[in-house]
Amino acid sequence: MAVPEKAPTLVNGVAVDQLFSTVDAVKATPSIANFKFQIKNKWATGSQNCSSAAGFTGANQEFAHPQPFKLEADEPAILLGKDTAANPVEHLLHALASCLTTSMIYHASSRGIRIEQVESSFEGDLDLRGFLDLDPAVRKGYQGIRARFKIAADVPDDQLQEIVRLGTGHSPVFDSLSRGVPVSVTAERL
Amino acid sequence: MAVPEKAPTLVNGVAVDQLFSTVDAVKATPSIANFKFQIKNKWATGSQNCSSAAGFTGANQEFAHPQPFKLEADEPAILLGKDTAANPVEHLLHALASCLTTSMIYHASSRGIRIEQVESSFEGDLDLRGFLDLDPAVRKGYQGIRARFKIAADVPDDQLQEIVRLGTGHSPVFDSLSRGVPVSVTAERL
Repeated sequence: MAVPEKAPTLVNGVAVDQLFSTVDAVKATPSIANFKFQIKNKWATGSQNCSSAAGFTGANQEFAHPQPFKLEADEPAILLGKDTAANPVEHLLHALASCLTTSMIYHASSRGIRIEQVESSFEGDLDLRGFLDLDPAVRKGYQGIRARFKIAADVPDDQLQEIVRLGTGHSPVFDSLSRGVPVSVTAERL
Repeated sequence: MAVPEKAPTLVNGVAVDQLFSTVDAVKATPSIANFKFQIKNKWATGSQNCSSAAGFTGANQEFAHPQPFKLEADEPAILLGKDTAANPVEHLLHALASCLTTSMIYHASSRGIRIEQVESSFEGDLDLRGFLDLDPAVRKGYQGIRARFKIAADVPDDQLQEIVRLGTGHSPVFDSLSRGVPVSVTAERL
């Protein structure tokens, strides 16, 4: 949250000086750590809808993205859609993958661990009998998700595992999804 | 999962005949309800990474999307990124919004409830002191998420609330996120 006066020191593409400045700034003024992220969604037809992420609040300020990011959703034909975009449960896997990766990179960078490449694959099991109300014992959501990371870094084997734990130990989406989040939902007339 | 011989009956853009055929097919052969969704992610630099959703398995078959859907992630400048794409926790809100909307539409359609418009807004609270390891009592993930739906439909007020409960009562992402999912993570060398 500080603007450096000289070129930032980059580790893995992360401006670690700014990261440390952020930590110091939050220690001095904890309220700047409060962020509120938001999107708006609009239904088109059937399985097609689109979200817009226009901005967020944090550090006691409002921020706008350079342009609103459009995020589409659809379903494949076998799930009665037109297959024009990833479906909601695929978007959920992307949220998890991207957050684990960024969290791992930021925290490795802050420790001076240089990473060359990171690739990962995610898969989740879903039993449609839940969604279709065919068996009340089957949950509607994912029954389990498996993530496999492949990392290229000049570190010993035990540090390779530590790098991944930096991801799982800090990722907001991993924490949200693995522990659950209270979600309140209201409805009114348009 | 059945191919209709005539033009499908559409309610809210959903082929309800096919939906009922799917229910019958799953009743007859429960194993076809097992789906596995998957993505691959590749780190670029810093906060930038990209997922690809190329296909999935379900109904004892493998399916490929018409082309792999690319899903980008970045962070805004205040969070040390380049702001080229939505960030992971915004993607999580999109996954939730799109899933609640589609679940609501499918189940309303199956009940013959015609819906004209659906718009929604989602916001989630995140205290960065968790991610930054500044307070162990502060969770890394969202502390809470609020969703507000606006619905245009020719229904009485109590049915408006029921429509939203069709979403929360069936959405795989809502169920996953509000109740939590076991996530296993492994790492190996690239």
